[in-house]
Amino acid sequence: MPPFELPADGHVIDRATLVDWVTTVVRHVGTPADMADDVAEVLVAADLRGITSHGTGRLPMYVALVEAGITDATERPERIGGTPAFGLWDGRNGWGPHAGRVVMDDVIDRATTLGIASAVIRHANHYGIAGWYPMRAASRGLIGMTMSNSTPLVAPTRGRTKLLGTNPIAFAAPAGRYGQLVLDMATSTVTWGRLLVAARRGQELEWGVAMDGEGRLTSTPAAVLADGALLPLGGVEATAGYKGYGLALMIDALTGVLAGANFGPFVLPFSLVGGPSDLGQLFLAIDPDAIDPGGFEPRLEALLDELTRAPTMPDAPGPVLIPGQPEAARDADQREHGIVLDHVHQDMLVKLGERLGLGFPAVISMADSGHLAVDA
Amino acid sequence: MPPFELPADGHVIDRATLVDWVTTVVRHVGTPADMADDVAEVLVAADLRGITSHGTGRLPMYVALVEAGITDATERPERIGGTPAFGLWDGRNGWGPHAGRVVMDDVIDRATTLGIASAVIRHANHYGIAGWYPMRAASRGLIGMTMSNSTPLVAPTRGRTKLLGTNPIAFAAPAGRYGQLVLDMATSTVTWGRLLVAARRGQELEWGVAMDGEGRLTSTPAAVLADGALLPLGGVEATAGYKGYGLALMIDALTGVLAGANFGPFVLPFSLVGGPSDLGQLFLAIDPDAIDPGGFEPRLEALLDELTRAPTMPDAPGPVLIPGQPEAARDADQREHGIVLDHVHQDMLVKLGERLGLGFPAVISMADSGHLAVDA
Repeated sequence: MPPFELPADGHVIDRATLVDWVTTVVRHVGTPADMADDVAEVLVAADLRGITSHGTGRLPMYVALVEAGITDATERPERIGGTPAFGLWDGRNGWGPHAGRVVMDDVIDRATTLGIASAVIRHANHYGIAGWYPMRAASRGLIGMTMSNSTPLVAPTRGRTKLLGTNPIAFAAPAGRYGQLVLDMATSTVTWGRLLVAARRGQELEWGVAMDGEGRLTSTPAAVLADGALLPLGGVEATAGYKGYGLALMIDALTGVLAGANFGPFVLPFSLVGGPSDLGQLFLAIDPDAIDPGGFEPRLEALLDELTRAPTMPDAPGPVLIPGQPEAARDADQREHGIVLDHVHQDMLVKLGERLGLGFPAVISMADSGHLAVDA
Repeated sequence: MPPFELPADGHVIDRATLVDWVTTVVRHVGTPADMADDVAEVLVAADLRGITSHGTGRLPMYVALVEAGITDATERPERIGGTPAFGLWDGRNGWGPHAGRVVMDDVIDRATTLGIASAVIRHANHYGIAGWYPMRAASRGLIGMTMSNSTPLVAPTRGRTKLLGTNPIAFAAPAGRYGQLVLDMATSTVTWGRLLVAARRGQELEWGVAMDGEGRLTSTPAAVLADGALLPLGGVEATAGYKGYGLALMIDALTGVLAGANFGPFVLPFSLVGGPSDLGQLFLAIDPDAIDPGGFEPRLEALLDELTRAPTMPDAPGPVLIPGQPEAARDADQREHGIVLDHVHQDMLVKLGERLGLGFPAVISMADSGHLAVDA
């Protein structure tokens, strides 16, 4: 998904400072130090890449789930079955980003000797931005993938009730001088996070991406949030929305169904009075050097050359981009000039800090941060 | 993709008769018998499932490619590298459906002992409907997947030239009393085959699925066929067409780029004066019993129960379908009552038979065939 716009009136915090504070908060609620490091790393990575909906803005909710006993802050994932190349893990309802990091690293290690390796995990929790895990594979020269099911928000084609999650798929590959090719996408046109932002800003939705509670298409975010549903990628049936539905269903089959976790409408939404989500996730890594040492990246560079230099549509807002390029640019900018938090985001973290007695660090204004490019 | 409509004035031929004739034709141009069996099986499977654009209607072109020396009718695929779980094959420019069947079977066999197995193939040719290969895995109780790159027809988001194929992804899983869950989709909204049919029938395209040679959106098939391009699944940038673009690019990275075949704009279109397409394809199988014997199918049935009984949108043309359901229904109908060929399709096969001295078998009219349901 493309980065959220940088708020012109936001406040800015240094990456290391934010990581330290998040780690402190996560440890404060009983999480062992090494696990807290993973949680902070993954959440701040989302902020850095501009995926504000999946970053530290979720920390207050994650903390509340731990405090309510819904998520277990101390449990570690365990490999409970499978073969050397294909594993079954039990997340034991611990922190999603820690379990995801452990399983992805195991899959990467195995793929470097076996050529390919994969694993599924049950009793998992939300693991932040899906793209973080395959990027970890790509940084070691491997191709990585992951998929997750999620809270039901999407109606199947022809349906009008929320039966599938926005079930993301993420893919990353090492891409030579392009860094990494990173695809990280929900299988709906928009995500719930985008919907919330549109509602807050009074923006209309594109036609064909969401419906109201009666199953009628609507462009009004409030009607969707009330009791509506998202349509899958592709939109209505006439524009092949059944392909997005098929992808979402495939992902649920490869995650919740395959791992023996919850699936479809049985995935519980985040709630302080319900039970754990019991998500299913799949991780996969392929070592290109297992079949052709050194051959993959130059070829991928050549393909990306063709795409990035392509002639554009008359009304194109800019050149052809490669997946992950806007997020990588945002990441580089915010590593240098600091992470920009909008007021709502900052207020949530300040309040969380006050409640826990762990004061949120000082921030500086956008004007003082050196951020050159502020989006419209 | 959904089945093509049954032409009311079509002619009908028995499945076995068509398979025999196609086998005879393929052997006639120098193909060994076992390889000809695979070609006929895969092409007729497309006709049976109603995917008319990928079936025996392509036989005249495939035969011409062999006769022109572009495709080598005698070459067999060879496993030239990799690990036990991840193989590299060389298709040696032989028949696509034969190489695909051999590689898929090898991957299935390995997955039954390793839990997961995958392979990529270079120097491959078009392999018909992608869904046929994972269905072979599902019929043995495994989850199957395949991807292929293809002739460049799709412009990347913001671009206006054909740089990527409609790169299909196919997935199948055993689904208990639902038979199989089969997703077989191009990563563009429409395929070139649909475009050709729309042009022939004077139909307009949906808005946002294709552009003309200047990069302007158009609903006129002729403008696209002249020098235009298809848009990826999702349509324009505002409706997340970059997700379809990202999927198409991911598939090219996992097939042509990974296998060391042609990729992107370098894939040669079918032509009697050019060279081989040199496609790349990926095959993958996972054995659910490797982690949870007997657990997968009942869970998938439970998910499909929820989807098929779901309440529908007010204007829905019918109940929620599961991917592959319309194709399976068409397959069952045509196995019983015969395969329906439209006039163009039948004429092509008759002419091919006349040219080769292998007369096309007698057909009967739709009225005499017992086909009950003729689509509007």
